Amino acid sequence: MKRILLLGAGLSASTLIKYLLEQADENNWQLRVVDRSLDLVKSKLADHPKGVALSFNALDRNERWEELQQADLIISMLPARFHLEIAKDCLELKKNLITPSYVSPEMNALHDQVKDADLIFMNEIGVDPGIDHMSAMRIVDSIKDQDGEIIGFKSYCGGLVAPESDTNPWNYKFTWNPRNVVLAAQGDTARYIDRHQYKYIPYTQVFSRLDNISVEGYGEFEGYANRDSLSYRHIYGLDEIPTIYRGTLRKSGFCKSWNIFIQLGLTDDSFILQDSENLTPRNFLNAFLPFEEEITVEAKFLNFCRKWGVDDISRYQWLGLFDDSVKIGLKDATPAQVLEKILVEKWVLGPQDKDMLVMVHQFTYLLNGERRFIESSMVNLGDDQIHTAMSKTVGYPVGICAKLILQDQITERGVLLPTKPEIYNPILDELEAHGVVFQELEKVI
Amino acid sequence: MKRILLLGAGLSASTLIKYLLEQADENNWQLRVVDRSLDLVKSKLADHPKGVALSFNALDRNERWEELQQADLIISMLPARFHLEIAKDCLELKKNLITPSYVSPEMNALHDQVKDADLIFMNEIGVDPGIDHMSAMRIVDSIKDQDGEIIGFKSYCGGLVAPESDTNPWNYKFTWNPRNVVLAAQGDTARYIDRHQYKYIPYTQVFSRLDNISVEGYGEFEGYANRDSLSYRHIYGLDEIPTIYRGTLRKSGFCKSWNIFIQLGLTDDSFILQDSENLTPRNFLNAFLPFEEEITVEAKFLNFCRKWGVDDISRYQWLGLFDDSVKIGLKDATPAQVLEKILVEKWVLGPQDKDMLVMVHQFTYLLNGERRFIESSMVNLGDDQIHTAMSKTVGYPVGICAKLILQDQITERGVLLPTKPEIYNPILDELEAHGVVFQELEKVI
Repeated sequence: MKRILLLGAGLSASTLIKYLLEQADENNWQLRVVDRSLDLVKSKLADHPKGVALSFNALDRNERWEELQQADLIISMLPARFHLEIAKDCLELKKNLITPSYVSPEMNALHDQVKDADLIFMNEIGVDPGIDHMSAMRIVDSIKDQDGEIIGFKSYCGGLVAPESDTNPWNYKFTWNPRNVVLAAQGDTARYIDRHQYKYIPYTQVFSRLDNISVEGYGEFEGYANRDSLSYRHIYGLDEIPTIYRGTLRKSGFCKSWNIFIQLGLTDDSFILQDSENLTPRNFLNAFLPFEEEITVEAKFLNFCRKWGVDDISRYQWLGLFDDSVKIGLKDATPAQVLEKILVEKWVLGPQDKDMLVMVHQFTYLLNGERRFIESSMVNLGDDQIHTAMSKTVGYPVGICAKLILQDQITERGVLLPTKPEIYNPILDELEAHGVVFQELEKVI
Repeated sequence: MKRILLLGAGLSASTLIKYLLEQADENNWQLRVVDRSLDLVKSKLADHPKGVALSFNALDRNERWEELQQADLIISMLPARFHLEIAKDCLELKKNLITPSYVSPEMNALHDQVKDADLIFMNEIGVDPGIDHMSAMRIVDSIKDQDGEIIGFKSYCGGLVAPESDTNPWNYKFTWNPRNVVLAAQGDTARYIDRHQYKYIPYTQVFSRLDNISVEGYGEFEGYANRDSLSYRHIYGLDEIPTIYRGTLRKSGFCKSWNIFIQLGLTDDSFILQDSENLTPRNFLNAFLPFEEEITVEAKFLNFCRKWGVDDISRYQWLGLFDDSVKIGLKDATPAQVLEKILVEKWVLGPQDKDMLVMVHQFTYLLNGERRFIESSMVNLGDDQIHTAMSKTVGYPVGICAKLILQDQITERGVLLPTKPEIYNPILDELEAHGVVFQELEKVI
């Protein structure tokens, strides 16, 4: 019997646990899940005979050591910043490791040692990153195999609400960490390359430089630029590609409305508001508008919005931004924290709401003298609030990868991404059985 | 004979050295000036019998120790970050100290020790900070002495070019550190209070929320908000004041044009441009504009400018921003560094150019049932490129303060700012003789 040790049983681990337990009998696995909350683990394992619920502090090396030692494979669903120390233990104990998170430079630096130890440390094998890599690389390799030349690659992904739950004027609800949504695109200037020209978009322009994306059956979306598209050239073996761009998807119209928050300064996370505890939403908004006598906050705000092409403030009214009757009640809060609190109350998923994951790749390439275009798109809907689209699209690829490793089907060694056919082919194939299906449209242009 | 030790003989020390030497005979002083460049010191002392040129590394404690020990007063014109270690030496050696720089929290923490040692560490005694404190506090104290209630204080200062040297379309040349001008208003959101309402202006709005300021004989200016106006409430003893605002002055129209650079991202100092060495100004600009075929960079840029109310790109053409014939040649440069290089070539002071320092205070107050207004303004013009307005308005107050300390005319002790009458009155009075004169306009409103 092989032991899988799963560190962390949070939101995104639900489908992963379900998948591993479903496969446990057939493969003769035992799934040992550790989290600080034993109740949480127990509820997710649901008395499955192959599941063992554990509770200790996985961040403490002494507490985790024995479990690591006895495992055949370790899956870390801990916050990304903890993966490195787990990886170092795995190296010392000669254990394979899977994480869904971005590879850090420090993790990458372990590559030679991991390879020499004949181990697999698989990373970026959730959805974004994860399914994006695998589905894109399958197309990249297929074009290259035909001796085609890829001249453009644009890729978009977004976590949204399912059409049936798309019931508010913003066409958006929080299906993932609200703080990350409020801070989206901050910190680094967006960088990409367009027909050999490097392009830079500062934070305050990101939400007004949009691509329009249509997904059949799901309507119109818009994509805003991710921070770093350039590093994907190397990851995908497309170092000389003239155009590469990665973006995040929202329903059309969202970005223009969101842009107002950025322009006003409401997403700023760098300073503490004076007396934030006693601010009402209206006070908060007014603090970012100039003082003007004999003009309402609504009128001042509308004047401001008009500069950015927004002529209707009903979306903001719906959020309660002009409400003066209730205090926000956050002590020593930044503008971003106050805005998050206001949004969370309105953009919360209802008990019956389902989320939706949308991914779109667009390739332009030259083949046999023709200029060709492929659009490959995938939409995944959540089943409920446990097996969300997010949980499924993260959990299945991690789970399938675990199976591949335990069945010795992966020959590559080192600190890896899922960019090789021996990894992406079996995973993408099995994902289809779980409803993660890409639709391809191909044409000469 | 009393020894004055001056650390640093850079640009802003020229007038200070001249003043101290002029006063040396009468007061029986010896002025000892240390800088890394002995030639620089010698040229500034010009063989004056009371001047001693020294060259050693003032940042090295061992090298400076003996000179500090033998001095009666130390003046540090070193970069602000070095003042603290000089201050600690002064405390140990029981020497008085003057710096023109902002008091750091670490410097402030020495207050009790300095006071107990019966010493004076005078800070913020240049122009901004310095003359601004003194001239404002004289008015604050005068209103309070009459039992008036100050309800509004706005204060503006700007380093500009003298009218006779105001010869380019931007009405601006670099009279101070160009890097600080390019990065102006970055980092912290501007904060002030307006009729009891706290107001916040994010970086990207600062140059479009302007106050108009007229200075008789010098035309129209505009003021943009400084980062932190709120801390001045406490410094000036105006903790409950409903309105306080500090701004930086530019000639009218400058900020609207500068704003375009900010909106595009050209002032970003947080990342390195790809292949910056080989960029021309035109490539650099184009990298921040979207890719569009069959439209010139000029047309794209003009489209962008129009969103911010700029309909004429001649100022940018004058800067050479569309030039494609010459490489900028900066390796691994940030956008802000590239922009600075382009600007420095055009905004350089010519050999005959003179600079100009403008300071304006506006007080609103209640007195005897009347609502009154005082505007106090000062314009100082540079004599030449050595005794610039900047050098004079920094050097004279430091020099006069040195005299007051050596003549035992200051009774206050500790880490000080020049906010008390015993300090600001003699300094402001003597400054008038050196051409630093405030014009006051007072009226009932």
